[in-house]
Amino acid sequence: MRGNEMDKKDVIIIGGSAAGVAAAITARRHYPEASVALIRKEAQVSVPCGIPYIFGTLGSPEKNLIPDAAVTGSGAELLVDGVTAIDKDAHTVTTESGRVIGYKKLMLATGSLPILPPIPGRDLENVFTVQKDVDFLRHLSSRLDESRDLVIIGGGFIGMEMADECRKRGNLSVTVVEMLPHCLFIAFDKELCERAEGVLTDAGVRVMTNTRAKEIVGNGKAEGVVLENGETVKADIVIFGIGTRPNVELAKQAGIEIGPLGAIEVDRYMRTSNPDIFAVGDCAEKTSFFSGQPSPLRLASIATSEARIGAANLFEIRRENPGVIGVFSTKINELAMGIAGMGERAAHDAGMECVVGYAETVDRHPGGMPGAHPARLKLIFHKYSGALIGGQVCCGDSIGEMANLIAALVQTRMHADQIAVFQMGTHPALTASPIAYQLVNAAELALLKM
Amino acid sequence: MRGNEMDKKDVIIIGGSAAGVAAAITARRHYPEASVALIRKEAQVSVPCGIPYIFGTLGSPEKNLIPDAAVTGSGAELLVDGVTAIDKDAHTVTTESGRVIGYKKLMLATGSLPILPPIPGRDLENVFTVQKDVDFLRHLSSRLDESRDLVIIGGGFIGMEMADECRKRGNLSVTVVEMLPHCLFIAFDKELCERAEGVLTDAGVRVMTNTRAKEIVGNGKAEGVVLENGETVKADIVIFGIGTRPNVELAKQAGIEIGPLGAIEVDRYMRTSNPDIFAVGDCAEKTSFFSGQPSPLRLASIATSEARIGAANLFEIRRENPGVIGVFSTKINELAMGIAGMGERAAHDAGMECVVGYAETVDRHPGGMPGAHPARLKLIFHKYSGALIGGQVCCGDSIGEMANLIAALVQTRMHADQIAVFQMGTHPALTASPIAYQLVNAAELALLKM
Repeated sequence: MRGNEMDKKDVIIIGGSAAGVAAAITARRHYPEASVALIRKEAQVSVPCGIPYIFGTLGSPEKNLIPDAAVTGSGAELLVDGVTAIDKDAHTVTTESGRVIGYKKLMLATGSLPILPPIPGRDLENVFTVQKDVDFLRHLSSRLDESRDLVIIGGGFIGMEMADECRKRGNLSVTVVEMLPHCLFIAFDKELCERAEGVLTDAGVRVMTNTRAKEIVGNGKAEGVVLENGETVKADIVIFGIGTRPNVELAKQAGIEIGPLGAIEVDRYMRTSNPDIFAVGDCAEKTSFFSGQPSPLRLASIATSEARIGAANLFEIRRENPGVIGVFSTKINELAMGIAGMGERAAHDAGMECVVGYAETVDRHPGGMPGAHPARLKLIFHKYSGALIGGQVCCGDSIGEMANLIAALVQTRMHADQIAVFQMGTHPALTASPIAYQLVNAAELALLKM
Repeated sequence: MRGNEMDKKDVIIIGGSAAGVAAAITARRHYPEASVALIRKEAQVSVPCGIPYIFGTLGSPEKNLIPDAAVTGSGAELLVDGVTAIDKDAHTVTTESGRVIGYKKLMLATGSLPILPPIPGRDLENVFTVQKDVDFLRHLSSRLDESRDLVIIGGGFIGMEMADECRKRGNLSVTVVEMLPHCLFIAFDKELCERAEGVLTDAGVRVMTNTRAKEIVGNGKAEGVVLENGETVKADIVIFGIGTRPNVELAKQAGIEIGPLGAIEVDRYMRTSNPDIFAVGDCAEKTSFFSGQPSPLRLASIATSEARIGAANLFEIRRENPGVIGVFSTKINELAMGIAGMGERAAHDAGMECVVGYAETVDRHPGGMPGAHPARLKLIFHKYSGALIGGQVCCGDSIGEMANLIAALVQTRMHADQIAVFQMGTHPALTASPIAYQLVNAAELALLKM
C-alpha cells in the first residue's frame, strides 16, 4: 500500500496529542504496509493530563512533552504543519506551508479548545485559559512567577489540580471559584468532593463554591474577580478552567456532520459522515456506555481508546466502540481519588434504582505498614440487574489502578455476587488485607440490600 | 435461630486466621439470625501474609495481629480454646477445656502447617520453620537478634520476603538456598524471577539456586548447611520456607474425606463429605479455575474467597467456587511484582498454545513525575480462544491493584481485542500515560500475533 509519491499517503492523521499519537501507533500496528503521516501544527506537544504539574511538581513545560519518538518509532511520518482545508471529494488535505497531500483514509484528532466565557474583563491582561501550547505554558508560568493573587475559575479536575500545583510555588495566594455546590461535582458524589475541598483548604487554598464569577475588573490588567454576591476577590492573575469545546472548524469547513453536543458525529466504528474520514478523541462525539445517549465526557484516556478502535477500522471494520463509561483519577495534596462509571446522582437522574455498598479500610496490612493510607470505597449497583454501574474510591496512590479495576468490572457488567467472591491477591506492602479488601466487602454489603 | 443454651450454636467455625474470620463475618452477614461461634486455640492471631515483615519493617509480632474485633464486631462469639474432636453424628465438638458444644453447621478453617523435611540436623537448636504462633515469632525474633549467619532454605514468597526483611536488621549475613533453577519459579516466569534474585543480591543477600540442602550440621546447635554439591554454608540459624501442608488431623479423626492432594475434599459449594460440615482455606482441597484439576495453591486471599462462598452456603446454596486462578503480589527490596493466572510454562504444561504480549513503560507520566518506576507487563493469551489466561507485572507499589485488575480480566475470560480497547483512567501522579498504558499495549501486541 505504500505510495511512491511524496504527496500521497495511505493514512493521514490530523492532530498530535494523545488521540493522534495512539491512532498513528495503532494504524501502523494493524496495517504495517500502510504509509501513515501524522500532521500537527505544534513543534512540541504537551502531555495533556500533565499540564497542571508543569506549574508545581515538574517545574517547566519542557518536562511534560510527548516524545516525537512515540510517533516516529511506530514507522509513521511526522509533519509539523497546519492543515487549512480538507477536500473530501479529492481525498486531499492542504497545509499552511502550501502542500497538498492525498489520503486514502483520513483521521481527525483535532482535540478541543478551552472555553473562555463571555464575561466582562475577559480581555484584560493576565486573564488566561489553560492551553496546551508549550510557548503559552512557558508564558503563563513566568506570569505566575510575577503574581501574588491567583483566582482559578472552575473547580473541576483542571481547576483543582492547577490550584494544588500553583499553591506549591509558594508565591501565590490561591482561590478557586466554583459555581456548583461542590468542586469536582460533575464526577464525584458529594462525600468525596467535600474531602477534596478539605485537603485543598488545609493546604491554604480558598475554595468558594455555589459562586459564579460575574466580571473581571482591572485597569488594563486583572485586579480582581467580582462574584455574583457582589464580593470582589483580589486577583492579579486569573485562570479559567471551566471546560473545553471540541475543535471542529476544519471538519465543519469540509462539510462533515456535527453531532448534538457540537463534536464531529461518528458511528460505533469512529467513522464520520464521510466513510473515508474518521474522528477520534475530544473532537469526536461520544455516547454513554450506559444509555447510548450523547455524552459530554472528554478525557485523554477515552481519546486513546477511541483511537485504538478507529485506527484498527481504517481499512476493515474490526472493532466497535461500546461508549464511554468514564474513568478518572486525581491526586490533590496527598489525597488520591478515583471514579469509574456512574455516580449515585447520575444513576438516579437516568431513572435507575441503585443499591450502594461502602467499605473502609487501610491500603496496607497490618495498618502499621509504611505508606498505609485510609481507604474508602463506594460501589454503586443497578438494583434490578445486580450489575455494577460505578464506583468511587480514595486512598493512596494505588487508587489509579483500583479505579481501573472497577472500570473493568463495570465494562464486563459484573454482578455484586461475583464481585463479593472476587479472587484478588493481597500483600502487606501493597494492598488491604484479604479480610478487609474493599471491593469484596462493598459488593457483599450492597448485595445483602438488594 | 439463636439458641438459648450456651452449649449449642447454629454455626461453629474452627480456626481464627483469614479463612475463619472471613467465614464468621460472612455467616453473620448472610444469616444475621444465626448464632455463630469461632473457636481458635491462639490467644492472639498473626496476619498471615504479614509474618515476614515482623522481622524487619514492623519490628515485632504485636504489630502484626488480626484484631479480635474483626470477629466480635460481626456479632460472632469468639472462644479461645482448642477443638479436640468432632462428632459428626451428634453434631458436636469437644474442646480442650472440656466443653461439648453442639452445632447445626460446622466450618473447618484449620489452615496449614509448615513443612520440615526429614533431613539430618533438623532437630538441632536454631533450626526453624515459619509458624504463625505469636509466642513462637517472638522467640524467633530474639534468636535472630543473637545470630550472625542466617540460611533460609526455600526461595518461594516466604523465603524471599524473609530474606529481604532479615537483611534489613543489619546484624545478619543472609543466604537463600533454592532447589529449583530460580527463586519464585513456581509462580513467575524466568525473567521476573531473575529480577527478584537480582534486587535481593544487590541488597547483599546470597542467592543460591539449583541447590538442595542435604544436612544441617552443628554441635547441638546449627553451625552450617551442607549442600548437595558438598559445600557447607555457615549458619548459626536456619529457617525453612519450603511450603506448607494442610492441617487435616481433626477432619481425618472425624472421618471426613481427604482429597488427592491431602487436603479436605470439598465440592463447589465448599461442603465436605458430610453435608453439615464445610471446609475453607488452606485445609480445603482446591481445584484450578482453568483445568478443574486439583491445585496446590494456598493463599490467604484464596482462603477468604472460599470463606465467602462457604459461609454464604451454610443454610442455603448461594454461591459456587469457580476454582483458583492464583493471584500473588510481593515486594522485594524496592521491586514490586505481581502475577495473576497462568504463566507461560504452566500454559505449555497444560497443553495450551499461547500468545504473549509485552509492554514496557513507566508507572507515572511524564516519566519525570516523582515516584515513577519502570513498569513491565507480560500478558499471556490462549491462542485458540483469544482469552486472557494470565499476566505478570513489575513496577511500583500500584502493582498490587494492577495484579488484581489482571485477575478480573482473567476471571471474566476477556479477549485480547477487548483488553486492547479497555477504557482505563490515567493520571500523571498515579499511572502510566494513556498512550503507553501497559495493559492495552500488551494486549494489542499479542492480538496481532494471533
